[in-house]
Amino acid sequence: MTLHNNLSTALTDLRRRTPLVQCMTNEVTTNFVANAILAVGGSPAMAADPGEADDFVALASALLINVGTLSTDKRVTIPLTAHAAEKAGTPWVLDPVAVGALQPRTRLAKFILDFHPSVIRGNASEIIALSGGVSAGKGVDSGDDPSSALPAAFALNERCGAVIAISGATDLITDGKQVVRTPGGSLLSTKITGAGCALGGVTAAFAGVCASPLVAAVAASVAFNIAAERAEKLAAGPGTYQPHFLDELYALTPEDVSAPERSEIENAGKPEAEA
Amino acid sequence: MTLHNNLSTALTDLRRRTPLVQCMTNEVTTNFVANAILAVGGSPAMAADPGEADDFVALASALLINVGTLSTDKRVTIPLTAHAAEKAGTPWVLDPVAVGALQPRTRLAKFILDFHPSVIRGNASEIIALSGGVSAGKGVDSGDDPSSALPAAFALNERCGAVIAISGATDLITDGKQVVRTPGGSLLSTKITGAGCALGGVTAAFAGVCASPLVAAVAASVAFNIAAERAEKLAAGPGTYQPHFLDELYALTPEDVSAPERSEIENAGKPEAEA
Amino acid sequence: MTLHNNLSTALTDLRRRTPLVQCMTNEVTTNFVANAILAVGGSPAMAADPGEADDFVALASALLINVGTLSTDKRVTIPLTAHAAEKAGTPWVLDPVAVGALQPRTRLAKFILDFHPSVIRGNASEIIALSGGVSAGKGVDSGDDPSSALPAAFALNERCGAVIAISGATDLITDGKQVVRTPGGSLLSTKITGAGCALGGVTAAFAGVCASPLVAAVAASVAFNIAAERAEKLAAGPGTYQPHFLDELYALTPEDVSAPERSEIENAGKPEAEA
Repeated sequence: MTLHNNLSTALTDLRRRTPLVQCMTNEVTTNFVANAILAVGGSPAMAADPGEADDFVALASALLINVGTLSTDKRVTIPLTAHAAEKAGTPWVLDPVAVGALQPRTRLAKFILDFHPSVIRGNASEIIALSGGVSAGKGVDSGDDPSSALPAAFALNERCGAVIAISGATDLITDGKQVVRTPGGSLLSTKITGAGCALGGVTAAFAGVCASPLVAAVAASVAFNIAAERAEKLAAGPGTYQPHFLDELYALTPEDVSAPERSEIENAGKPEAEA
Repeated sequence: MTLHNNLSTALTDLRRRTPLVQCMTNEVTTNFVANAILAVGGSPAMAADPGEADDFVALASALLINVGTLSTDKRVTIPLTAHAAEKAGTPWVLDPVAVGALQPRTRLAKFILDFHPSVIRGNASEIIALSGGVSAGKGVDSGDDPSSALPAAFALNERCGAVIAISGATDLITDGKQVVRTPGGSLLSTKITGAGCALGGVTAAFAGVCASPLVAAVAASVAFNIAAERAEKLAAGPGTYQPHFLDELYALTPEDVSAPERSEIENAGKPEAEA
Repeated sequence: MTLHNNLSTALTDLRRRTPLVQCMTNEVTTNFVANAILAVGGSPAMAADPGEADDFVALASALLINVGTLSTDKRVTIPLTAHAAEKAGTPWVLDPVAVGALQPRTRLAKFILDFHPSVIRGNASEIIALSGGVSAGKGVDSGDDPSSALPAAFALNERCGAVIAISGATDLITDGKQVVRTPGGSLLSTKITGAGCALGGVTAAFAGVCASPLVAAVAASVAFNIAAERAEKLAAGPGTYQPHFLDELYALTPEDVSAPERSEIENAGKPEAEA
């Protein structure tokens, strides 16, 4: 009940406050990430360059760090900016794209856990790899089921305090105490590049207005699932799905995201096995 | 009258000559910038890399420099290329994205004014900041009204001779002698990333075929406003707006852009207060 | 006959095996390239960064190297990765974007021929320039007809063994022994950025499942032509063409690509004049 009310408030606040969301994201999906943040109500600023990124983060309401491509520049600016975000008190979201499959990303992503992300959003393979386990991931595709990554999610949360959002057919989101399930979405999201990246960006937008990172992560996931289902009905394939998806993200109402069937608190504590 | 005839001629020439437009733009919106240049009739070439950009500019009909992201590479190649453009006589357009909010961009953009851009296109906050004033901008969003940036526009024009195009609800464009208003457009342009960047690219395309930078800047603004209004009617939101916008830019006719209500010469000289 | 059966098998295999396609492509069109690979059935991974790219290639089913933008990073990683691909036996596709017009790309593209690409896909001007001739190209647009590049294609094939695919109104594809013509397509492909780049990516996807690089290149070209024609019928201009094109690529069937009129073996040997 409280959760559902908080979700509706979160979207209302996002539209009213248009938080400035700084994005350090990959060159493949940056345009889609920016458009998704705009569609949901935020103001994206792709400030990721040397001498800019770490200064800018104090102005931003939230920060997204996506390690999907790691130029020489970004290997320097990402840790500086994560550190600056922590010092400035700017909430930040880590998207560990293809961590596990690629060592430079894995090392960098693990290192910046020390700067205390508010939310870590990845697929099951990425969450398992980031927590130090061996995953079945192949590039950006997960070879693992979200529930199989729950132990890794608890371990990661223990280590850095972040809310962990595991994306999959049904997303699982935990703050180490509660696990929230957000069912739904569309398989077409797996047929376009950047759906996960855009979810990371939208999560950062919500984190810019929500006191609770758990609410931010759940709100983003629910918003995505609803927009995805509606876009799928309008689309003839993955090409037309993408513009419809942005339209539907833009059209979402606070009532939409607070519908009780969209987010369920699965259990009220870490399972015994994980304690 | 003369202005309106020139606008129609400009679009006819653009379609006939398909000018090669070299773009040094940011990694967020480069695809949309290229597609907008193609749609209006130009031939974009994203040649921005070390050892390429400054040689290429002599082949190009026009150059766009957008400082929206500033990698280590671009900090070197942008000034070299601006300098090469001036020497080669290639007209170039400066898009000072987020100047004011971010110091490295601000310094670089001010420095390359010495290489005499033909047109500077920015929102009011960016124009004010580039001229040395204090603006209300936040990231890429303007906190200022176009008319409030007119004094800064005159000062910038005085300094480097460029036509200044201030984007906003109604764009204001001045060559230091005349001020042209171009009303219209769509609010959905503010809900997608890169509309301003694409306007910069289309301005460069027109600059590649127009002897007058004022005509180039006005033609680009008018083309944008018409395409935006028509796309808004067809779109269900910001996602579908973008493809419709490109379609409408492609479908524009010389008659469309020369319609007298689309561009008004507001005054025939710098206001007394600024003289 | 055998060719046509092989094309249908190629698409069936692509959908079944979803090959991991590593892409080192340019920052302008990387999103469209990734979406085209997804639409046709592959799994793109944009792993191009230092310390990642050359390790990753051993995991990939195929590799795309597109020299469309050449950052300082990529000048280092591209040759390392091409070399690693050859050692790992990973088939790779070279897309020599704007080779001829820009010297750094030309030098790099010629250098990596030593690492034996499976397929080289470019327009006539690029193929001519890569083989050492003087072309009429301007930026990414070809000033030459595909058939005029056939001698250059034979010379390139002789040098490095690659199948050469020359894109144009009708694509010509040769393995040095046979020349295959693939008629059709849409002029709207020339009004969006990245159609050629996406064809390179789709060629790599097919190369990831086809033993024969000739079959891979022909299958990609045929798939593109069919999707282009169908998308043109649905589109109102270049903006709406792009999403429809991805939809149609996604909807293609094995029967579509094996239609005999879609690919014709033009001659069964290198013409006398070229021998």
